[in-house]
Amino acid sequence: MDRRSFLAKTSGGIAAAGALAAPAVAQSAPKVTWRLTSSYPKSLDTIFGGAERIAKLVSELTDGNFKIQVFAPGELVPGFQAADAVAAGTVEMCQTASYYYWGKDPTWAIGTAVPFGLNTRQVNAWLQTGGGADLLNEFYKTQNLYGIVCGNTGAQMGGWFRKEIHTVGDLKGLKFRVGGPAGAILSKLGVVPQQIPGGDIYPALEKGTIDAAEWVGPYDDEKLGFDAVAPFYYYPGWWEGSAIIYAFVNMDKWNTLPAGYKVALKTACEAVNGSMLATYDFNNPAALKRLVARGVKARPFSKEILEACFNAANQTYTEIMATNPTFKKIWMNIAAYRDEAYLWQQFAEYGYDSFMMLQQRNGKLK
Amino acid sequence: MDRRSFLAKTSGGIAAAGALAAPAVAQSAPKVTWRLTSSYPKSLDTIFGGAERIAKLVSELTDGNFKIQVFAPGELVPGFQAADAVAAGTVEMCQTASYYYWGKDPTWAIGTAVPFGLNTRQVNAWLQTGGGADLLNEFYKTQNLYGIVCGNTGAQMGGWFRKEIHTVGDLKGLKFRVGGPAGAILSKLGVVPQQIPGGDIYPALEKGTIDAAEWVGPYDDEKLGFDAVAPFYYYPGWWEGSAIIYAFVNMDKWNTLPAGYKVALKTACEAVNGSMLATYDFNNPAALKRLVARGVKARPFSKEILEACFNAANQTYTEIMATNPTFKKIWMNIAAYRDEAYLWQQFAEYGYDSFMMLQQRNGKLK
Repeated sequence: MDRRSFLAKTSGGIAAAGALAAPAVAQSAPKVTWRLTSSYPKSLDTIFGGAERIAKLVSELTDGNFKIQVFAPGELVPGFQAADAVAAGTVEMCQTASYYYWGKDPTWAIGTAVPFGLNTRQVNAWLQTGGGADLLNEFYKTQNLYGIVCGNTGAQMGGWFRKEIHTVGDLKGLKFRVGGPAGAILSKLGVVPQQIPGGDIYPALEKGTIDAAEWVGPYDDEKLGFDAVAPFYYYPGWWEGSAIIYAFVNMDKWNTLPAGYKVALKTACEAVNGSMLATYDFNNPAALKRLVARGVKARPFSKEILEACFNAANQTYTEIMATNPTFKKIWMNIAAYRDEAYLWQQFAEYGYDSFMMLQQRNGKLK
Repeated sequence: MDRRSFLAKTSGGIAAAGALAAPAVAQSAPKVTWRLTSSYPKSLDTIFGGAERIAKLVSELTDGNFKIQVFAPGELVPGFQAADAVAAGTVEMCQTASYYYWGKDPTWAIGTAVPFGLNTRQVNAWLQTGGGADLLNEFYKTQNLYGIVCGNTGAQMGGWFRKEIHTVGDLKGLKFRVGGPAGAILSKLGVVPQQIPGGDIYPALEKGTIDAAEWVGPYDDEKLGFDAVAPFYYYPGWWEGSAIIYAFVNMDKWNTLPAGYKVALKTACEAVNGSMLATYDFNNPAALKRLVARGVKARPFSKEILEACFNAANQTYTEIMATNPTFKKIWMNIAAYRDEAYLWQQFAEYGYDSFMMLQQRNGKLK
């Protein structure tokens, strides 16, 4: 046998044997590479890190065959256009906050936070067991998107104020950097909502161009140093009693993704939904202690202010529901669970937590 | 060439070709079948369903190559021997509560619940971000086990009582069906802890053989109908402010599992850790409403009783730590985070929840 025919025979033999073994693998594990554009800067490392962890898990779960490349805002598209770019098919998927797009339709707000809505455990219960994620996907489908819940910050702080506020009258003319539905609600009480990118907040607060600004919570806020120019740190951020982070996938891309990769992506997102919250919950307490140690003055919003905001929020929802049946259907569904969930919370969870918080105040947990 | 040498050559040829092409597939996706023995009966469908969901996800994530068969208690081994059977290698893995084994070493309690320990969000934060899961695995390794967190019930109720209890004196001689560390702590206050399987609780309460019994929370308790014989439903279950469900894998089985299957199992467990809690959080509120509608009398434990139990718990931990450095190391680690976590909780989360609970009480969430 000459060398040439030897090679032909053996390589043919290998090809034939390979042809018997390979198809199942080739069909179930094609190479797929997607890009994910995040709306969050890398400095919000807990959220951005969540996107990176999704990519890592998906790769590990698919033997490296399904790769997701994670991009910061501006690298592919601007942060607030992430979902639009995905809907248009410019990018395969994004990590974003649904309420960034609420100007197009208030229904978008629900996928991240509705002021005075569910808290974090409640929202996960509603999304996962109560059919909420499916209800929202009926809406996202009309936007050419498939949505997957992939994170949460927990309840946020109310933000940094240059002066103390006590009454609803103190809100009049207050220039407050706050976005989305909260801005619309607060404007009913005389607040002048401001839209300012994260990097411009500090100088605006320093100069007094704005009177107050909200960001996230102790761990993220600490890095920006707002306390040097606005020492009053108000709570709670009633507009984000829970803030869901969403992954959106272009609907055509989703429909053509192999079944095993869909499971890998969904399961990775489900895991990160928990681990992002865990990261905030572990890092916020230490950050709060550091902030208080350097002189931050934590202040609760007064009952008068909270009640006025609650009433203004309900008025806003009534107005939206008068003309938006999709928002109405979903919000009414949430509201029914919210009432019974907050009744139940007063028993085991609050009974436990309130006793433990009392021990903490009395120095008994040290 | 005779038939025999043809077969020898061709099969040898295929084997040789296979040796070139197959290893990546064969190594990364071998057929593996494991059995999981649960400590929980099928009637606890949220917990048992969690084990079934882990098996389903793992199968889907591995193209059906890694199968986990889920068994109820008694089908393979008795429920309270699940971890022992896994450690011995009789069964590959189990779903159980770590504190069932605390008689062997109090350190076992920490993997499910230490009375007056962390609440559910805090415990996930400590386990996932605070290094708690790794700390516990150092201990489980000495037991020939690899542990993976795979669920939580949230804060539990304090149980069903035939008569009201108001003072510490009322605890004297109380025959209470309660297990684990809580039983040891309560016995310091005169309670006589009882160990009774779930199915025997009802007749024991009916006859007055026992005075009280704890189970889980509204959704699970409702099915057992304890309210007909013990109408006072106390809260909170301070011994389970959070109750972690653990999966344990035999250490040798874990070490020889392909890397991709390890990721699949861990990610599936991480997802189910969230979805089990979500299921409880969605179903408990409606169950509580039904229980109250049929006459159940919900009662908070008095401040006097809670404080006496808190002090007895601390005394118990001091005693354990005097001779158990592993328990001491882990519990001190938890306690440091617990203090700052309960400080932080008083700001955004409690600020939000307390306002919302007030609205609920005032009928404003309907």
